[in-house]
Amino acid sequence: MPNPSAAMLVIGDEILSGRTRDANMHHLAGRLTEHGIDLKEVRVVSDDADAIVAAVKALSAGYDHVFTSGGIGPTHDDITADCIARAFDDHIDIRDDARDLLAAHYAASGREFNAARQRMARIPDRATLIDNPVSIAPGFTLENVHVMAGVPSVFTAMVESVLPGLTGGAPLLSRTVRINRGEGDIAGPLGLLTQEYDRLSFGSYPFIENGAYGANIVIRGTDVAQLDLASRALQDLFKEAT
Amino acid sequence: MPNPSAAMLVIGDEILSGRTRDANMHHLAGRLTEHGIDLKEVRVVSDDADAIVAAVKALSAGYDHVFTSGGIGPTHDDITADCIARAFDDHIDIRDDARDLLAAHYAASGREFNAARQRMARIPDRATLIDNPVSIAPGFTLENVHVMAGVPSVFTAMVESVLPGLTGGAPLLSRTVRINRGEGDIAGPLGLLTQEYDRLSFGSYPFIENGAYGANIVIRGTDVAQLDLASRALQDLFKEAT
Repeated sequence: MPNPSAAMLVIGDEILSGRTRDANMHHLAGRLTEHGIDLKEVRVVSDDADAIVAAVKALSAGYDHVFTSGGIGPTHDDITADCIARAFDDHIDIRDDARDLLAAHYAASGREFNAARQRMARIPDRATLIDNPVSIAPGFTLENVHVMAGVPSVFTAMVESVLPGLTGGAPLLSRTVRINRGEGDIAGPLGLLTQEYDRLSFGSYPFIENGAYGANIVIRGTDVAQLDLASRALQDLFKEAT
Repeated sequence: MPNPSAAMLVIGDEILSGRTRDANMHHLAGRLTEHGIDLKEVRVVSDDADAIVAAVKALSAGYDHVFTSGGIGPTHDDITADCIARAFDDHIDIRDDARDLLAAHYAASGREFNAARQRMARIPDRATLIDNPVSIAPGFTLENVHVMAGVPSVFTAMVESVLPGLTGGAPLLSRTVRINRGEGDIAGPLGLLTQEYDRLSFGSYPFIENGAYGANIVIRGTDVAQLDLASRALQDLFKEAT
């Protein structure tokens, strides 16, 4: 049985303008791989309701799980929760369970639980809350979409709240063989090797280091013995260059 | 007149598996913003022909420009050029102009111009070449899609080859105001300010630093005077916290 599939939707003008470098994609990709869920696609869209709704619908229909990051805070540009409700035709308003969590949190810290902060309790009717141990304001899961914050420390914590509840497949394992030769020299022998080990996948990731060409060949699969055989065979092919 | 719009398509399993952190998205986003082209969407897909073709078609139809990175090297998993040809129903084979460039390059460096390296001269019939001063193997432009390498130093060089030929709009300028208060305290006054300056866009990017909440408010627009007025007004609203 193939592993469950997933997509990620990053919501935020700050990434598209080049102001901020996204960190959540790399983190989620690594955690999903460990959990045996295959991340197949990522989309980054701006803080635009139509773009968010369209992407949520497309990704939710195409993959087993969708993970979103960004746009669930208290300011005017935080429109993700409302967009998710719209995508699934659900009603959304301030919900008692989320409001109670936040009210207790702000009461304890002596900060005002004002109208802006109450916006963070806007949760679609049919959603279940995602625990946020960092800053309390919850994410939520609606159908197969897991809606999480953009701030990396909060995103990371929410991923850990969600993952244990999701069924993963066999974790994808990998071996990396570094070869200090140009990809053009590697390609021929590597192509033959990929045919011999057709249950494994081979990726070639070239680099230029101090003016010299090389490539990391990453072999992926779920069978340790096959992986070890293939990586040894590859090393033997380029003995002097690994 | 609005600025031209753009999308980026990142092709590569290594990003989706969490092995590699993408660097090209951040670079392209910054350069497009400077050039007055609005990056509206990014997609990351795996080395899968159907996924690449579908994404190229969708993005090419939706935006003025599409920039791709990855998958144009000599190895078996480099399938981008063939996918682009398929997306635009163009014929593709080793093309004389690209082969001549590469043959001269490998002759000069004494390396073999073997079958794998000749694959890098596979260019669709209707495409124009994109200059690659780093490692010679060219990218290409077909219709509104600019096809570039994934290796960051080569990607960066190809972006500089392409950009001068593209008409940009007014560069989007920005002012960032850092406010050492939680977004919940900022949201109300900020919301009123955004209504007052409706030709500017306001983004709020929260952070947690040493356990304390804050946010960078980024104001964007093309009118310097308006930007300066709005950022001063915002600073005045949160005098003690900026």
